[in-house]
Amino acid sequence: METLAQQINIEKTKHSKIDQVDFDDLSFGSIFSDHMLVCDYKNGNWETPKIMPYGPISLDPSAKIFHYGQSIFEGMKAYKDADEQVWLFRPHDNHRRFNISAERMAMPEIPQAYFMEGLETLIGLEKAWIPSTDGSALYIRPFMFASGKGFHASPADAYKFLICLAPSGAYFSGKVKVLIEEKYSRSADGGTGFAKAGGNYAGQFYPTQLAAKKGYHQVIWTDDHKHEFIEEAGAMNIFVRLGDTLVTAPTSDRILDGITRKSILQISERENIKTEVRKITVGEVVEAAQDGSLKEMFGAGTAAVISPIATFGYRGKDYDLPELENSYASRLKKRIVDIQYNRAEDPFGWRYGI
Amino acid sequence: METLAQQINIEKTKHSKIDQVDFDDLSFGSIFSDHMLVCDYKNGNWETPKIMPYGPISLDPSAKIFHYGQSIFEGMKAYKDADEQVWLFRPHDNHRRFNISAERMAMPEIPQAYFMEGLETLIGLEKAWIPSTDGSALYIRPFMFASGKGFHASPADAYKFLICLAPSGAYFSGKVKVLIEEKYSRSADGGTGFAKAGGNYAGQFYPTQLAAKKGYHQVIWTDDHKHEFIEEAGAMNIFVRLGDTLVTAPTSDRILDGITRKSILQISERENIKTEVRKITVGEVVEAAQDGSLKEMFGAGTAAVISPIATFGYRGKDYDLPELENSYASRLKKRIVDIQYNRAEDPFGWRYGI
Ligand SMILES: Cc1ncc(COP(=O)(O)O)c(C=O)c1O
Ligand SMILES: Cc1ncc(COP(=O)(O)O)c(C=O)c1O
Repeated sequence: METLAQQINIEKTKHSKIDQVDFDDLSFGSIFSDHMLVCDYKNGNWETPKIMPYGPISLDPSAKIFHYGQSIFEGMKAYKDADEQVWLFRPHDNHRRFNISAERMAMPEIPQAYFMEGLETLIGLEKAWIPSTDGSALYIRPFMFASGKGFHASPADAYKFLICLAPSGAYFSGKVKVLIEEKYSRSADGGTGFAKAGGNYAGQFYPTQLAAKKGYHQVIWTDDHKHEFIEEAGAMNIFVRLGDTLVTAPTSDRILDGITRKSILQISERENIKTEVRKITVGEVVEAAQDGSLKEMFGAGTAAVISPIATFGYRGKDYDLPELENSYASRLKKRIVDIQYNRAEDPFGWRYGI
Repeated sequence: METLAQQINIEKTKHSKIDQVDFDDLSFGSIFSDHMLVCDYKNGNWETPKIMPYGPISLDPSAKIFHYGQSIFEGMKAYKDADEQVWLFRPHDNHRRFNISAERMAMPEIPQAYFMEGLETLIGLEKAWIPSTDGSALYIRPFMFASGKGFHASPADAYKFLICLAPSGAYFSGKVKVLIEEKYSRSADGGTGFAKAGGNYAGQFYPTQLAAKKGYHQVIWTDDHKHEFIEEAGAMNIFVRLGDTLVTAPTSDRILDGITRKSILQISERENIKTEVRKITVGEVVEAAQDGSLKEMFGAGTAAVISPIATFGYRGKDYDLPELENSYASRLKKRIVDIQYNRAEDPFGWRYGI
């Protein structure tokens, strides 16, 4: 029997853009590879995916994506090792989470074969687009949105699933300064915060702009009730090191269940770093900053990898974090990156060769 | 000096679809008129709007609308009176609210002239598309979304503003049955609930589907903390009549400031109907249903006009509302519709002739 991958029709570009790209000077997610995967959902079924030259999508003005925000996405990376072998990191977890997001947004789930074989076929074709510069990778963006028509506020009857690829450098440049938010919120109890749904991100832009005007790169979101608990950042889960214990908030329906987050918890266990998954109050973090027991704070996510936080702001005051010699952040980052780029053993079975 | 309207370039369709439309049998928002208005925002400026044949929009796959949900919209109607004169209802309020939504979603505001003159020019051209059947109107959908490119989770640098028109019949057909929600939420304190942002709607679809499986048409949203207070419905504000008093929840950053809602409050004042704007607990509504003091419940919105609720469900039990002879809902609906269709005096100055 034919696999799905064998059925994928590939239309190759006649004009590769790869020669125009400086792979040693990549920003994040602003250059796109030559091809994309496109798959349509109609009449209750996914059609066979197609790979075609990267190019514009045409939609009716009443397509529900424009009106009712039915859209979800994932963020992954492909890594190239010294032998030009290509690796993904826990890709089945992204597929699983994609379908969790789909359910919450009343969108159709995508079968594993469409996601995985689509991904592998596309990346196989675009192998030359994977940077090998340290700190760079091929950012992978699977996404789905409502293409079905109509102004009635109800789920669409047609969807598009795409995968696009962007060779990318670091998400943050330089020291990261964050603001603990006290007024705006990212998500509600019983809301969509745990889903990678488009609307969750647009809602963060305005408060993040206000924070940026005060000199912060990111907002750390707190609960919408009393802004008492530290939850997560725009595209990262948050870890706090209190003394020698690494603490992160439990996931909930307000917080994205990050793959980097859970990998850090697993690596820490192996490395005998004490971890706690529990609610973190803003008060205890401020107190720990004052009495010196707050050693580190960092963000964790596919795009940002592990990004140490240099300063956090709260109620008009800035708190600087110490610069440690042998930080948990740098130790854990080395471990995870070594697995991702196939520079070390992978005792967890996370690496996935293409 | 040329007005903006005089600068709008109009490209007329060569193939009108109007003969294919049965204006006596219209559903809601599924047929679109011959032309649309399109306006691009680039390099910090709005370009001159264009009117062109209704047709597909072409976007880069990395356009931020697909990924981060930056989209807002408005919902208005154009009404035709017995003399074929065309009227809008409080259109400047829609423009104002559009810009409030834009600010919260970190999108550029649209100048009043672009919104109003764009609207008037387009509707002037599409006058034949305004139904005159009772209960029908031309539904107007101004909307804006992020067309700028890139996978970085930050506001786009380019946007599109469009106005599309859909001759439409009633939003609901038959008796409306609603479910008071106890688990899912529509919005957070400090969130985007007060904005007409796409993501707010997609988030409602799944809980509404679950309610639909149990036989309800709509969900009545409650606060996300304890699901204690009645807030609003999917596309309507909610009114409750307790004894002879009409009660509706105060607007907040979780609730849309509906134009129908505030018009009802103003008409009620003139009609000597006693109103209260205050928090409404689910408990008091259930109690009032049990002791007979709950006389009416209805939804209010541009699409749904005033839609009486026949039954509400809560914690597995259904509560039927009485059928009143001379209900507030029917009285108020007649008043508002008579103003909209120019069948009565407009003491408020709400009607706006085109
Ligand atoms: C809101 C949010 N939190 C956390 C993360 C980190 O998740 P992951 O480690 O799976 O990339 C992301 C990015 O994917 C995110 O968008
Ligand atoms: C969430 C929500 N609430 C209430 C309303 C009613 O507002 P209006 O009366 O201005 O149409 C709408 C529809 O516009 C809405 O989308």
